Amino acid sequence: MVVRDEVRKMKSVAPLVAALSNEKRCEALKLVAEALQDKKDEIFAENRKDLDYAAENGVAEAIVKRLKFDEGKLRDVVAGIEQLITLEDPIGRITLNRELDEDLILKRITCPIGVIGIIFEARPDALVQISTLCIRSGNCPVLKGGKETTNTNRILFSIIYNAVLEAGFPEGCMLAVEQHNEIDELLKCEGLVDLLIPRGSNAFVRYIMDNTHIPVMGHADGICHIYVDEWADFETAIKIILDAKLQYTAACNAVETLLINRNQLIKDNFIPLLVSALAENGIKLRGTAEVTELVDKYYERESQSDTEEIYAPDQVPEKLKYETIDDSEFKEYLAPVISAKFVGSVEEAADFINQHGSHHTDCIITSSDVNAGRFMQLVDSAGVYRNCSTRFADGFRYGFGAEVGISTSKIHARGPVGLDGLVTYKYMLSGRGQTVGEYANGEKSFHFKDID
Amino acid sequence: MVVRDEVRKMKSVAPLVAALSNEKRCEALKLVAEALQDKKDEIFAENRKDLDYAAENGVAEAIVKRLKFDEGKLRDVVAGIEQLITLEDPIGRITLNRELDEDLILKRITCPIGVIGIIFEARPDALVQISTLCIRSGNCPVLKGGKETTNTNRILFSIIYNAVLEAGFPEGCMLAVEQHNEIDELLKCEGLVDLLIPRGSNAFVRYIMDNTHIPVMGHADGICHIYVDEWADFETAIKIILDAKLQYTAACNAVETLLINRNQLIKDNFIPLLVSALAENGIKLRGTAEVTELVDKYYERESQSDTEEIYAPDQVPEKLKYETIDDSEFKEYLAPVISAKFVGSVEEAADFINQHGSHHTDCIITSSDVNAGRFMQLVDSAGVYRNCSTRFADGFRYGFGAEVGISTSKIHARGPVGLDGLVTYKYMLSGRGQTVGEYANGEKSFHFKDID
Repeated sequence: MVVRDEVRKMKSVAPLVAALSNEKRCEALKLVAEALQDKKDEIFAENRKDLDYAAENGVAEAIVKRLKFDEGKLRDVVAGIEQLITLEDPIGRITLNRELDEDLILKRITCPIGVIGIIFEARPDALVQISTLCIRSGNCPVLKGGKETTNTNRILFSIIYNAVLEAGFPEGCMLAVEQHNEIDELLKCEGLVDLLIPRGSNAFVRYIMDNTHIPVMGHADGICHIYVDEWADFETAIKIILDAKLQYTAACNAVETLLINRNQLIKDNFIPLLVSALAENGIKLRGTAEVTELVDKYYERESQSDTEEIYAPDQVPEKLKYETIDDSEFKEYLAPVISAKFVGSVEEAADFINQHGSHHTDCIITSSDVNAGRFMQLVDSAGVYRNCSTRFADGFRYGFGAEVGISTSKIHARGPVGLDGLVTYKYMLSGRGQTVGEYANGEKSFHFKDID
Repeated sequence: MVVRDEVRKMKSVAPLVAALSNEKRCEALKLVAEALQDKKDEIFAENRKDLDYAAENGVAEAIVKRLKFDEGKLRDVVAGIEQLITLEDPIGRITLNRELDEDLILKRITCPIGVIGIIFEARPDALVQISTLCIRSGNCPVLKGGKETTNTNRILFSIIYNAVLEAGFPEGCMLAVEQHNEIDELLKCEGLVDLLIPRGSNAFVRYIMDNTHIPVMGHADGICHIYVDEWADFETAIKIILDAKLQYTAACNAVETLLINRNQLIKDNFIPLLVSALAENGIKLRGTAEVTELVDKYYERESQSDTEEIYAPDQVPEKLKYETIDDSEFKEYLAPVISAKFVGSVEEAADFINQHGSHHTDCIITSSDVNAGRFMQLVDSAGVYRNCSTRFADGFRYGFGAEVGISTSKIHARGPVGLDGLVTYKYMLSGRGQTVGEYANGEKSFHFKDID
């Protein structure tokens, strides 16, 4: 397959897809949901091939879990499709309606972006989610999934594509790319592909960003911070830190760095709790010297046997692994490891996050409205949180039905990207023969009246 | 100056600028307007130096007109600032307010983009417009103007910068770059500069797009089309074509290509009118063979002396310059030259525009609502017009007060970019210690309730 030729055809049918009615797009989604259920045995059989291949090649259990497409996953994607159908149509919304002058009406109307290339990890449910988000929003997707799910992807794509054709979508409105080298061909389709959404490892996303002139939406790093303010509730802080670090360590919205207020009360009372919680949960601490020296001190205190006041017996942090590093060595771990440093204020925390973070999701633990407000104002990230886990940064948890990815760029869409991020707009201007010359020479003048 | 160091400082003050209140930003704009008026003699004196230099170096009259900053231009920019103050604050708007669950509130709030690099042509009024749009929207601009207005730019920048400092903006919130080689330094400030807006020649914008990993907003080409439908009113068509071609030939929104319905009535009645109008106004026609053969025929008819019926005596197109070209040779002229070809339908017109245009602004001349609707639906451009000049594609004419540029990308902002295009958003999530684990294990569940 010559990717460019196929994408060129897609580009020419994209306006036809954009012109399909809301009813037609919803009907297509219904047919997709039905077809997936009708052909589930075939899908599971193809998925079996991928699972067998993975088993033969000793693929890790955690990854195999993601490759699997079973009754549960089918139920989830069908429920997702049903939710998508109920969401308000993102297309054709009038976001500006202005009379520039008599009989000269300007409207700004939302419309699909067009051709979107999406490169995603080996998760068959992702293929269904991404395709159906594109169908709902009138976009034409070029899909490249992880090679570990080639067989499952192939049948899922074929089922979805045939269902949308049956609904009256034009041929060539969806495209599957299977070969890894075809990604490079896709990256060169500037002017034909309107947007690329790469999902996957840091290095992979960086490679895409560095090797194309097509706009890219996504995120490379996910270095999320939690700042424990001087007005933090300690139990809340511990609970959130453990969830944000451990609930899914490989996620981009897992916390990687703790910033802790240098207040003496916190040093005296929060640090022992933290050290205990980290040890108990097998989380390694990499702190600056100021942090680890304090941890050393608690270990000394412990040996002076006044620990009972601080630690319950089953919490004694005997097994805490920790080491001293410079804060320039803080990084994305995607593992049960966490960086920590002390800061003097909300402002210092925000400044550190803005300089060292990845503008993904950062959280303050505080009971002070003033400090929370200041933090959420100053931190320049897609998500700024107060007293809840960074792991909430996700399209489904935001109520978007699904997401095509998470963006750390500030351009176009930021944070979890659902239907809203898959639309753009066009300006429509309707007149009765007006010329700019008439306005330039003063014969006519604009009156700019917004119409409700 | 090491651009990167200065931009790094700007990046660290950008959140402080973003946190300034609407009142503070409007107060700064008032001080800017006052200072510009107070120091007008100094500004005019500096502008005199630029004009003298241009005169000594034989710069063309048309360009000198743009360099000039006089009482009229001062009045216009001050009026623009006053209009900016009256516009609704683009910052801090809540565009989503959703209860994900009890005491877990998600808000999407508009905020400034941050650090924006703007490289613009030699027009001192552009410096004022761009700076004040950035001040209004809480952004920090890095400004590089055309070298022909170095002296005027320097004093305008100094006046504006001092006024915003007086209003309480932080030092380093605005930056002027004077040397052309510093543009290349700026292009390398990925991660510090959030957005680049280049204005200028096709080749220059293309150079910027090809040499940076920073997101770029703008347009290289401006190949605008007018499609004369079979249901066109001929007089309206001629009037609009002449305005769109001639009102300002060097503008990106000037028309470059005519698509004409192949209907016999049009061939018989519109072509003679068009040929006459082009000849009379000194516009050269570059048409496909089908067009020029028809024009040849009219010249023959003319020699057969039945021209009176078609042309008024002063309209005889004796001086029409025309040549036959292939439609692959159609291009952006920025001069009194126009391409033309016949098409069979609205669909064929839209398809040609989508393939050969630059997605800027394209217009249909028709009295048919059906054909207009189809055209505006299928044409994939920032502006789709009906019965009015393509020259209306401009931030001021859309009632945006001013524009930082026109975007032909579909990502982020499309068409003329005013305040709305200079903002992004962040998600703020406030909870009471909620963890994702609680939702994953079924202990809690989302209820997604939008709050008015």
